[in-house]
Amino acid sequence: MRISTRGRTPPFIAMDVMAEAKRVATAGGDVVHMEVGEPFPGAPAAARMALTQALEQGAPLGYTQGAGLPELRAGIADLYRRRHGLTLDPERVVVTSGSSAGFVLAFLGLFEAGQRVAMADPAYPCYRNMMHALGLESVTVPAALEERYQPTPERLAAAGTLHGLLVASPANPTGTMLDRQHLGALVDFAAEGGLTLISDEIYHGLTYDAPAVSALELTNEAVVVNGFSKYYAMTGWRIGWMVVPERLVEPLQTLAQNFYICPPHASQLAALGALSPEGEAEVAGHLDLYRRNREAVIEALPRLGFVDIAPADGAFYAYAGLGRHGDDSRAFCRRLLHEGGVAATPGLDFDPARGGGTVRFSFAASPERIAEGLRRLERFLKG
Amino acid sequence: MRISTRGRTPPFIAMDVMAEAKRVATAGGDVVHMEVGEPFPGAPAAARMALTQALEQGAPLGYTQGAGLPELRAGIADLYRRRHGLTLDPERVVVTSGSSAGFVLAFLGLFEAGQRVAMADPAYPCYRNMMHALGLESVTVPAALEERYQPTPERLAAAGTLHGLLVASPANPTGTMLDRQHLGALVDFAAEGGLTLISDEIYHGLTYDAPAVSALELTNEAVVVNGFSKYYAMTGWRIGWMVVPERLVEPLQTLAQNFYICPPHASQLAALGALSPEGEAEVAGHLDLYRRNREAVIEALPRLGFVDIAPADGAFYAYAGLGRHGDDSRAFCRRLLHEGGVAATPGLDFDPARGGGTVRFSFAASPERIAEGLRRLERFLKG
Repeated sequence: MRISTRGRTPPFIAMDVMAEAKRVATAGGDVVHMEVGEPFPGAPAAARMALTQALEQGAPLGYTQGAGLPELRAGIADLYRRRHGLTLDPERVVVTSGSSAGFVLAFLGLFEAGQRVAMADPAYPCYRNMMHALGLESVTVPAALEERYQPTPERLAAAGTLHGLLVASPANPTGTMLDRQHLGALVDFAAEGGLTLISDEIYHGLTYDAPAVSALELTNEAVVVNGFSKYYAMTGWRIGWMVVPERLVEPLQTLAQNFYICPPHASQLAALGALSPEGEAEVAGHLDLYRRNREAVIEALPRLGFVDIAPADGAFYAYAGLGRHGDDSRAFCRRLLHEGGVAATPGLDFDPARGGGTVRFSFAASPERIAEGLRRLERFLKG
Repeated sequence: MRISTRGRTPPFIAMDVMAEAKRVATAGGDVVHMEVGEPFPGAPAAARMALTQALEQGAPLGYTQGAGLPELRAGIADLYRRRHGLTLDPERVVVTSGSSAGFVLAFLGLFEAGQRVAMADPAYPCYRNMMHALGLESVTVPAALEERYQPTPERLAAAGTLHGLLVASPANPTGTMLDRQHLGALVDFAAEGGLTLISDEIYHGLTYDAPAVSALELTNEAVVVNGFSKYYAMTGWRIGWMVVPERLVEPLQTLAQNFYICPPHASQLAALGALSPEGEAEVAGHLDLYRRNREAVIEALPRLGFVDIAPADGAFYAYAGLGRHGDDSRAFCRRLLHEGGVAATPGLDFDPARGGGTVRFSFAASPERIAEGLRRLERFLKG
């Protein structure tokens, strides 16, 4: 018995760094966590409260429908009204076990084995790792800083036969966004080529200038993947959703039942609490804190010798070139962790070809910790 | 955009029956649920309490390690000491998002696309549906009532080239078990043929005569899949585990991180509570209730004309031939639901070839409800 070829995925380096950082911390070292995109506030009080009340009232928390509790699907549909002015049939919402499950269901349910799905490079590493395991060919299109590290129809047209296109705005690791015009061009490209369009919108809500445009504002022929991990700060709860064309709901729900039975019930109740006015008010307040972090990071990085910093339109990441600090991001991050007490993620996680020269700093920690992290970074680089 | 061939799985009929039963119930009808294997007591008080306390103390509930919290892995390892007298390194335990995730990780991580994995027919339908979606060929070996509906080396030897063998004891839908001798013969068969052995032990603990034998008592070269849904009555929490050979932990954890990030944190805390002495004492008390149900069902079914009833050694299912009630289990169950007020699952869910003539009654509901279900069944059949 041994691991299969398809199951042998490269490690998700950010999680390895986190594990290593936890070991350092356990050994008495204090680490500032700028490696994972884990919002520091945790679930809003209204989310915790909703679950606590259900537990105290003895809710059985058994299986739910495969597509999730109807009231949660309705609450998510209403979010599109509030955020985007869209009227969305709750039947088109499929609640999932984190946005991770949304990708698994989309990759398995909308593509045959062997099909080719394009995305920008750099990108969230689990995209290509999941695709590899599920028999898809991930076609990474090198994206340019001048194009906000986003894919363009021109670059995609040069990528050969494609069956799908995955876009992310705000993106991980860069934080860059596609405005209405650029997203529209990609929607058109997908429609003209008959490509299945997947729009990763997990960082929606976390934007600093213009709000993010949902693919649903431009087309109903897209699969939107989103979740409660980032904006609602509920990472460990593993609760997310997809919005799909109506005809796909039934088969995707069936697939989801077979693979997951249902999303975690407790997390569904907490998510309902997060969508309450109190929950929304609390998470809206997080944005100012990330904004402070963003300003501090964007001010510090060029001063400390980092180059080619992506415009962090949204999310809570700064993606930067190492510049004079070398071209071995893995070694740089290891030294920074062990000698500097700051965990960061090597760009190799996101861009195997060019990521030796880049690093991602997450600023999802509290302003106090980010300020401390930047002080340590400065001391480490000057030491 | 349309559903892929591989993603087009037949519906999990039991879940469809449950959804239909919920609609009937919402319309004012009272339904006795004998369709899904959902233990009526719900999570033990100690599980709820553990989570409530963590929520009140403001635990952040962020990401955990991909293989789960170390203390939960240790608690699960200790369960093997208590149940089976085995010393198990906690490092060999991978906590998963329900046992469903254990199967996904095993099917993806231990088999190449196109490989052939054998199992008994009838079986849990998600096995073959997941395998189909993941590019595996499920080789269903027709099992005989005289052989407790379990696979045998003789029948497997006639099934052509095999790469894996999936066994379940107690099994779903039959409740039948493999004793040490018969499980040993299958372990030997797998070892001699170089087959990857997966042992579904999700119904362990729910046994009425002899305790269940774990594959781990016989070999370390097996993948054991288990979880908190059945014995610990925590279905909707989606929390389970695998035990794998040590060399597979690292690659499977990496695969799990890519596909799931981590198991739901809240459910991990609740699971820790379930493993406490208080939690264990509570769930141990459930067994007497199921035992009463089992006696009532096993007494009633032959009297009401059902035939070929599988010996329900464990779990909470009675699998029976329709006998004089016909050979269209789907129509039978539909009429029983709408005219009789009892939900049951057609055998077609578990055995596409022969299940038109069989039905599965779950007796995971309370003794009062099961007694009521049997009264209704009698009235329906005589009416």
